[in-house]
Amino acid sequence: MKLLSEAVLAGDRLSLARLITGIENQQPDAYTHLDHLFPYTGNAQLIGVTGSPGSGKSSLVNRIAYYYRHPDENQPTRKVAVVAVDPTSPFTGGALLGDRVRMRDLAGDSGVFIRSMATRGALGGLASATSQVVQVLDAAGFETIIIETVGVGQSEIDIARLAHTVVVVEVPGMGDHIQAGKAGILEIADILVVNKADQDGADHTVRLLNQMLDLEYSQELENITHHHQREREGLPAEQGNPLNQWRPPVLKTVATQGEGVSELVRRLNKHYRHLESCDELRNREEKRLQNEFDHLLRDGLITRWRNEITDERYKDIIAGLMKRDYSPREAVRKLVSMGSFLLLT
Amino acid sequence: MKLLSEAVLAGDRLSLARLITGIENQQPDAYTHLDHLFPYTGNAQLIGVTGSPGSGKSSLVNRIAYYYRHPDENQPTRKVAVVAVDPTSPFTGGALLGDRVRMRDLAGDSGVFIRSMATRGALGGLASATSQVVQVLDAAGFETIIIETVGVGQSEIDIARLAHTVVVVEVPGMGDHIQAGKAGILEIADILVVNKADQDGADHTVRLLNQMLDLEYSQELENITHHHQREREGLPAEQGNPLNQWRPPVLKTVATQGEGVSELVRRLNKHYRHLESCDELRNREEKRLQNEFDHLLRDGLITRWRNEITDERYKDIIAGLMKRDYSPREAVRKLVSMGSFLLLT
Repeated sequence: MKLLSEAVLAGDRLSLARLITGIENQQPDAYTHLDHLFPYTGNAQLIGVTGSPGSGKSSLVNRIAYYYRHPDENQPTRKVAVVAVDPTSPFTGGALLGDRVRMRDLAGDSGVFIRSMATRGALGGLASATSQVVQVLDAAGFETIIIETVGVGQSEIDIARLAHTVVVVEVPGMGDHIQAGKAGILEIADILVVNKADQDGADHTVRLLNQMLDLEYSQELENITHHHQREREGLPAEQGNPLNQWRPPVLKTVATQGEGVSELVRRLNKHYRHLESCDELRNREEKRLQNEFDHLLRDGLITRWRNEITDERYKDIIAGLMKRDYSPREAVRKLVSMGSFLLLT
Repeated sequence: MKLLSEAVLAGDRLSLARLITGIENQQPDAYTHLDHLFPYTGNAQLIGVTGSPGSGKSSLVNRIAYYYRHPDENQPTRKVAVVAVDPTSPFTGGALLGDRVRMRDLAGDSGVFIRSMATRGALGGLASATSQVVQVLDAAGFETIIIETVGVGQSEIDIARLAHTVVVVEVPGMGDHIQAGKAGILEIADILVVNKADQDGADHTVRLLNQMLDLEYSQELENITHHHQREREGLPAEQGNPLNQWRPPVLKTVATQGEGVSELVRRLNKHYRHLESCDELRNREEKRLQNEFDHLLRDGLITRWRNEITDERYKDIIAGLMKRDYSPREAVRKLVSMGSFLLLT
């Protein structure tokens, strides 16, 4: 039973691919392997890269991965995995020819593993499946895992939450009318990238993004002043130390030429060290595990409840709703308030 | 305590607006009112209208509402409510001037109630809040409720599931490359509308959509043949009677001119009668209530579990995860498999 997970730990790529497929298909034994691998997780640096279709984020992901494989002198190379959660990504087959060619740089490298997640419309489940795939890659010894997602819908935000560092990719020419919709982006971005920076208007877009950050972080500045004042007065620090604040840098890249990528990777690593230094790395990890636990517990509790009551009883409850004998909330309140879980039957 | 819900039942618009705000803000007494109103729900025709920003769906919603208020001769007028779940909707303030002007047609009419839902990023909660707002409007006596949503993300699909009839709005010029992403749309559409049909390429888009439907429904045709054969052989019908199948019509509209709107409303009502005739109306209602019940029960069970264990115990569980003593799934399995719910503490 342990064979597959042991092969994954030993670095067998075929086993890795098989296990990931098992997770995507929600096979029960894949979950058992996941449990076996869990003790080996928690070591990888997780990078989320998100942006609209056409922002060139796939090329950028490609370059980042390549850079981690071929770093500047005196830097160690790292094993890199890419998880593309994006139906428009070249990694999932929607490539322009140029992108496919560039991907070949990575293709023969055993220190790189690229995987696209089948989307199948069920985005809620997708976030959870992606989290599990990342755990497998983490256990398999990939030191940097890049998760590529499209857009900024709720599900993309869920997936971005997996990452230690979230890179939001923009392109020049972001108009004022788009700005309103970008507020959500700033909340999740640790690093902002204006890609295709050789196009007109790149500097303008950088300026716009910085102005939006100024608005966001003027409040933070006040908090820092407030914090220092409390410190001078000998008062204890309030929760959420504002000195831990990281203001997202706005970087320019030309992914197709590799321009700006080494600086981006430098910032990625800097952000990771920042998280480490203020214990945020541990906090994020804890929050992530707590979310996963709560999510699974929710499923577990309702599954158990459904196993403990008969189909007939369940149908009766629903029939009562249809007859408007009670509201869904009233039914739940009554069921949940009963003394023992078993009495619900 | 019952005052507010009674005022809502009596048709007081201010109370209606206040209750909806209470639901949006998740106020506990709003839920109590919701329980009081529940027996009066289940009467409204629920129409979902979804489409990309720029498809003109808001203008179309506006026209549909107006038409129900001013129908052709011999048709009764109906009380109409619009719930806009769309940050780009003119109903939520993102209007072009022209749209705002058109909305004035409805503004003074006491038989019309328009409400936009604050999105606040939490789209999962949004689907549930929208469902509750629809229940309030239903109880308040609105006979037709139109739910306007943007795009086709998972959350929009959740909201669309609320509706009896889902209208998907397209525009001319839908290219082949978009088609791949449209498969999900066909699954939720009961009626397809090509709006802005006075623009070039409208007929081409209608043709494309019909071709996609042909692919989808060729399988259905086989099922019908199979069904008839079983009937001839005296075998019982299999589940999911294919004769109940509704093939979505593809209609053309020019919402800004009101063109095609009376035909669209005719099809909306036809689809509603279709659902009624094959008991689908009841099935959908049952499924909707069941989903709501399951969702609330999930919340209720985990809330109760959290109330029954101490904060310390909960922290211990999470600490064990951090130390990799067990995986989240293993923790849940152990907790859920215990004999009594109370023993979990």
